[in-house]
Amino acid sequence: MADHGGSLGRARSLFAHAPEPWVDLSTGINPHSYPLFDLPATVLARLPEPGRAGQLAAVAADAYGASSPRHVALAPGTQMLLPRVCSLVKPGRAAILGPTYAEHARAAALAGHSVTEGPDFSALSHADLAIVVNPNNPDGRIVPRADLLSLAAALRRRGGLLVVDEAFMDVGPMDESLCGDVGQGGIVVLRSFGKFFGLAGLRLGFAFASPQIAEHLDAGFGPWSVSGPALEYGIRALGDTAWQEAMRRRLAAETSRLDDLLAAHGVPADGGTSLFRHVTTDEAAGLFHALGQAGILVRNFTARPRALRFGLPAGEGDWQRLEAALSVWRDFNQGGGVRAAALR
Amino acid sequence: MADHGGSLGRARSLFAHAPEPWVDLSTGINPHSYPLFDLPATVLARLPEPGRAGQLAAVAADAYGASSPRHVALAPGTQMLLPRVCSLVKPGRAAILGPTYAEHARAAALAGHSVTEGPDFSALSHADLAIVVNPNNPDGRIVPRADLLSLAAALRRRGGLLVVDEAFMDVGPMDESLCGDVGQGGIVVLRSFGKFFGLAGLRLGFAFASPQIAEHLDAGFGPWSVSGPALEYGIRALGDTAWQEAMRRRLAAETSRLDDLLAAHGVPADGGTSLFRHVTTDEAAGLFHALGQAGILVRNFTARPRALRFGLPAGEGDWQRLEAALSVWRDFNQGGGVRAAALR
Repeated sequence: MADHGGSLGRARSLFAHAPEPWVDLSTGINPHSYPLFDLPATVLARLPEPGRAGQLAAVAADAYGASSPRHVALAPGTQMLLPRVCSLVKPGRAAILGPTYAEHARAAALAGHSVTEGPDFSALSHADLAIVVNPNNPDGRIVPRADLLSLAAALRRRGGLLVVDEAFMDVGPMDESLCGDVGQGGIVVLRSFGKFFGLAGLRLGFAFASPQIAEHLDAGFGPWSVSGPALEYGIRALGDTAWQEAMRRRLAAETSRLDDLLAAHGVPADGGTSLFRHVTTDEAAGLFHALGQAGILVRNFTARPRALRFGLPAGEGDWQRLEAALSVWRDFNQGGGVRAAALR
Repeated sequence: MADHGGSLGRARSLFAHAPEPWVDLSTGINPHSYPLFDLPATVLARLPEPGRAGQLAAVAADAYGASSPRHVALAPGTQMLLPRVCSLVKPGRAAILGPTYAEHARAAALAGHSVTEGPDFSALSHADLAIVVNPNNPDGRIVPRADLLSLAAALRRRGGLLVVDEAFMDVGPMDESLCGDVGQGGIVVLRSFGKFFGLAGLRLGFAFASPQIAEHLDAGFGPWSVSGPALEYGIRALGDTAWQEAMRRRLAAETSRLDDLLAAHGVPADGGTSLFRHVTTDEAAGLFHALGQAGILVRNFTARPRALRFGLPAGEGDWQRLEAALSVWRDFNQGGGVRAAALR
C-alpha cells in the first residue's frame, strides 16, 4: 500500500524511542472533531433505513450547494469512490494536475487509464479523464472555478469527464466549488466529510454529479453503503451551520498561529489550507527526523524530499511540544551551520 | 431500488394505522446484538490504522476457518463486494442457484453478465460465474461442500469462478463452509458480520479468496475501507467464541419456539436457518397484511406470492404480539372459511 499520513503504527516503527503520546500532524484532518453524541443502539443493530440515506443526501445537497439531492451519491468515504469515478469513462488518457494526493493516480490506473500527472493545467483539456484537487493537497493551490468550467466544457464536447476533488473546500474558498455546476454534465465533484468535521474514522464521503451518474454510482454500491453512525453524524453535522462557521474561524486563527510558529523557526509555509500548511525547505529530511524523535509526526513525501506538510496541533500541550521541538531543531541546525562555517 | 426487508419506513407507508412500535421480523438479522461497548473518541476521529485492519483480517481468518489473513479482504458490508466480485471474471454467463437473495442477480447484471437464476444445480457448471447462497436465503437449502468443490473444480478448468455467499453460515452447518478451501483458486466466499452479530448498521463484511483475488479486492476499495467502529467491533466479537457458541444455542432454541408457534397456527415452517424461518402457504398475502395491521412486519416476495420469511422476535413482548396476531388471523381466517362454506 502507498504511504499515507495518519498512521501512528508507521511512526512508531520509524521512531522507536520517541516519547508517547504522539502528536500527529501528518494528516489534514481537523483535530477538533464535531461534538460526539450518543447513538441509539438501533443505529448499530439495524440496517440503515433507506429514508435516512435520502435525508442525508438532502442535507448534503444543501450544505455543499448542489441544486437537488438527485445530484448526490453517498459513499463510505471518498476514497472508495475514486476507482468507481475513474471508471465512468472508458479506459483512455487520464491527466492529473499535480503533484497531488497520490491515490488519484492509483485509482485512474486501476480503472485502466494511462496516467500522466503534472503541473500544466492546459494539458488537462486533451485528456479523457481530468482530475484536479481543489484546493490542492498538499500545497493549497486554487484553480478558479471559471477555469474548471471551461475545462469541463472542452472535455464534455469529446465525451470526457472532469473530476474535482474538493476534500478541503470546506475551509474555502467556497466560491470556487463546482458542487452547484454538476448539472451541466461531465463533472464529478468529490467531497469528504471526515476531514473538516474531524471524523475520519466514520468513513463518509459524497460524489456530486448529474442525476444519471449519481444513480449509477449509488447502484454500484448497492443499498446500505453508508453505516448507521455515519448517516446520523452526517445529517446532524452537515445541518449545523453555526458549528461550521465557528470552526472555519477557529481553524483560520490556528493556521495563522502555525504560520507564525513555522516562520519564526526559519521554515515559513508557502501554501496550504486552514487544515494543513505546506513547507518547502532543503532541511526537510532533517526536520522530519528531528520532529519524529520528539514524538511529532508530520507528512513527508518520497517523491519530493524538500516538501513537508503540517497539520494543526490538537491543543495547547501539542502546540508547546511542537514549538519546543522546532526550537531544539533550529538551535541544533544553526549551531551545525555555524560550526560548518567556522571550519571553512 | 429493489425491495428488501428491514425498512420500517416502507412498513409505515403500507400500514399507516398499525400500532407502534413495530415488531420487525422482516430481516434475518439477529435481534440479540453483540453487547455494545464504548469506543474511544479516536476511533471516530482518526483514520483507521492500517495495522488494525490487518488485525481484523487475522481474527476473521481464524473465526471463519481460512488458512491465513492473506485470504481475507475487508469491506464495509458484503453488499458492496457483490459487483466487485462479479467483475472478477469478464462479462459472460452468470448462473445463480435460486430463488435466492435478489442482489446477486442485480450485481451480476451490473458487471455485464447475462444472468440466469434457477433451481438446477447442475446448470451452474456451464457458467462463467456461478453463485450459490449457502445456506440459502430465504429457504435455508444447503448445498454440500463436496458438491460445491466439484463445481468449483469444473469452473476453474475453464477460467470460471464460484461465489458462495455464506451470509448465514454462522448458524451452520459450518462443516459445509468453503472458507478453508479458497486457496484452491476460483472460489470466493462472502461472509457477513452484521447478521449473526446483530450489528447490521456497522457495515462490515468479508471476502475469502486466493491471496491474489483478496489483494485485488482490497486495492479496489483502497485504504480505510472499513470504519473505525466496524474494526473495533469486528476484532472483539469475532474473537469472542464463548459469546458465539452461547448465541448459536440461544438462536436454535428460539427457532424451535418459532416453529412451534407457526405450526400451531397452521402455517408450519418448511425451511430456513436459526436466523429466519420460511413458510409457504396459499394464505401468504392475507397473513402478511393481518400481521402488518398488527404492527408486525414479515418479509414477503413479489415474485413468489406464496412465500413468507419470519425473523426472530427480539423479546417476550414481541413474541406475545406475534402469537396474538397469529391467533386473531387464524380465528378470522377459519371463521371466514366456515362462512364461505355455509354460503355454498
